[in-house]
Amino acid sequence: MLTAKLRKIYEETGADALFIEQDFLRAYLTGFRSTDGFAVVTGEGCTLFADPRYFEAAQRQLAGSPVRVEAGSYPQALEAVKGLSVLGVPFPFVSAEAYRALGAEGFGLVDAMPALRRAMMVKSEEELSLIGRACTIAEDALLSILPEIREGMQEREVAALLEYRMRQLGASGTSFETIVAFGENGSVPHHETGDRALCFGDAVLIDFGCKYEGYCSDCTRTFLFGDDGRHGAFKKAYAEVLRAHELVKERVVAGMTGREADEVARGSLKKAGLDGYFTHSLGHGIGLQIHEYPTLSPRGETVLENGMVFSDEPGVYLAGEFGIRIEDSVTLKDGKVVSFMNKTDRNLIIL
Amino acid sequence: MLTAKLRKIYEETGADALFIEQDFLRAYLTGFRSTDGFAVVTGEGCTLFADPRYFEAAQRQLAGSPVRVEAGSYPQALEAVKGLSVLGVPFPFVSAEAYRALGAEGFGLVDAMPALRRAMMVKSEEELSLIGRACTIAEDALLSILPEIREGMQEREVAALLEYRMRQLGASGTSFETIVAFGENGSVPHHETGDRALCFGDAVLIDFGCKYEGYCSDCTRTFLFGDDGRHGAFKKAYAEVLRAHELVKERVVAGMTGREADEVARGSLKKAGLDGYFTHSLGHGIGLQIHEYPTLSPRGETVLENGMVFSDEPGVYLAGEFGIRIEDSVTLKDGKVVSFMNKTDRNLIIL
Repeated sequence: MLTAKLRKIYEETGADALFIEQDFLRAYLTGFRSTDGFAVVTGEGCTLFADPRYFEAAQRQLAGSPVRVEAGSYPQALEAVKGLSVLGVPFPFVSAEAYRALGAEGFGLVDAMPALRRAMMVKSEEELSLIGRACTIAEDALLSILPEIREGMQEREVAALLEYRMRQLGASGTSFETIVAFGENGSVPHHETGDRALCFGDAVLIDFGCKYEGYCSDCTRTFLFGDDGRHGAFKKAYAEVLRAHELVKERVVAGMTGREADEVARGSLKKAGLDGYFTHSLGHGIGLQIHEYPTLSPRGETVLENGMVFSDEPGVYLAGEFGIRIEDSVTLKDGKVVSFMNKTDRNLIIL
Repeated sequence: MLTAKLRKIYEETGADALFIEQDFLRAYLTGFRSTDGFAVVTGEGCTLFADPRYFEAAQRQLAGSPVRVEAGSYPQALEAVKGLSVLGVPFPFVSAEAYRALGAEGFGLVDAMPALRRAMMVKSEEELSLIGRACTIAEDALLSILPEIREGMQEREVAALLEYRMRQLGASGTSFETIVAFGENGSVPHHETGDRALCFGDAVLIDFGCKYEGYCSDCTRTFLFGDDGRHGAFKKAYAEVLRAHELVKERVVAGMTGREADEVARGSLKKAGLDGYFTHSLGHGIGLQIHEYPTLSPRGETVLENGMVFSDEPGVYLAGEFGIRIEDSVTLKDGKVVSFMNKTDRNLIIL
């Protein structure tokens, strides 16, 4: 028996079977997370092949689910699709080695990723709840470390402390490499957290997130560590980034494209003469991976729907001076943007 | 200009150019770590294509190296190999999507991974020093948390604390998901760290490692949390696992195969009647990835050489009772095994 969700993916792919090895896709199809295994989806149903490390746990967890659990790995999964003609595998994620091996077995191969992406973009209530938990852990962790940030601390110390708190609060790990950027380092959107020590008057940009039961959160806040009175340009830019960020929450609605959503923020920054410093996209989808679909950018043609989860992260970067980014993970509900982040203030905080 | 190392890889692959996108392989070929970019190796030299996020840092870091740095990403890298016939890409790591795209451009494709693996198995002095640092951080972190382990702590709390210490000591992150297993959980070799609380008399198995400048460490220690006097079987098994672990250090020499090295430990456990409980391989190569070549297992035919780095990790697992694993990251120097781990005691410690 296939659930409606799996049947749709299966039929859209148009293969005789989906043959899925990748951890996050296997977890999505079966509901069971592991570091090895195969999911095989045919018109009759979905089977998870689990090796001895996972077999019992998978049986226990999937009891009563329509997913069958069988002992085995690649050879058993291959046996299960013997005699079929066309397999669906995710071309962006399957290795050339695996692709060639399946071809050598005589299978025709089609890309399962377009159908998987369409399904995975729209989250179930359960998925929204797990993403919400990942966001709450991230926010609680950030709030708990703010009072501990001291002059002279290195970027990497702040990152380590934040990650530790997220772990303590139940996260399994980070959803990407934590970015902590002090002062001028903030002007590099993907700054590599290093040993720069915090000085009075520095801007502090923290871009971070965690994983909870496989699902990601993504959040950025920018603070001032003490106000040395020379922050006129920073404060003006901060107000404009915040305006763009909040405007997205007010004006982006289901039915818009990713491009139109991006334009809400970009247009607002343009009025302030800052669009030239907004050097990346407004946002990206968030789920089992930290970068998913939809894409909210000048080239994003996906129509936004209820249940999609994405980041709202306008930013401006003045090379050698400072960078400002304000980011929430949000979803669309009843046509409107609802943020997962309600605990941390987005107004400028002076630490 | 190609270094001897790159020339060997290039010539062994037999392609007109190596065309490498994967982070760890690009870092290996160019010496520069980043999350995006392309390395192109031809008979004339090695070029790193770096996007604006990394271009300046790459130029700075690679000044004086034979690696050329050019601004760009995929399109520029593709332009650089225009007119060539055969590209070498790593089949186990390149996606089917990228493989098909290069095929559609008219290139013949060969697997660059065999030559890369042969080169990467044997570490340079600099690589050995970075792995050594990753091992020292791991050991120092473990030693620092042992006095803080208390009755009632959850596995995940111990893992979080250990990871935090490694970060504080300079690691960029973990080299794999930390395993902390209390009591009977230790009998699952890949136990998922959870909320099991520590009780007096539990065995405590900790398998962990960190990354330092991209290089991994891997270490396992098994302790007793208090001796409740019912540990006869555990202590006997511990002594045998330790004997097997140390025997590998004494008897494994350059020129042996991975299979022969595995047999040193397996044979020792067999004499004690425990080989049936040693359900995995003796070890795996360690480097920029946590699982590399050579493989030290009953099927490992690679001949061990000076400069190779691998784990020495015999273990025994008695389902539902306990598991014991003792693991060092080691290298071969002057024909003999030298451990990177010299700070933590391998004799049984009662916490």
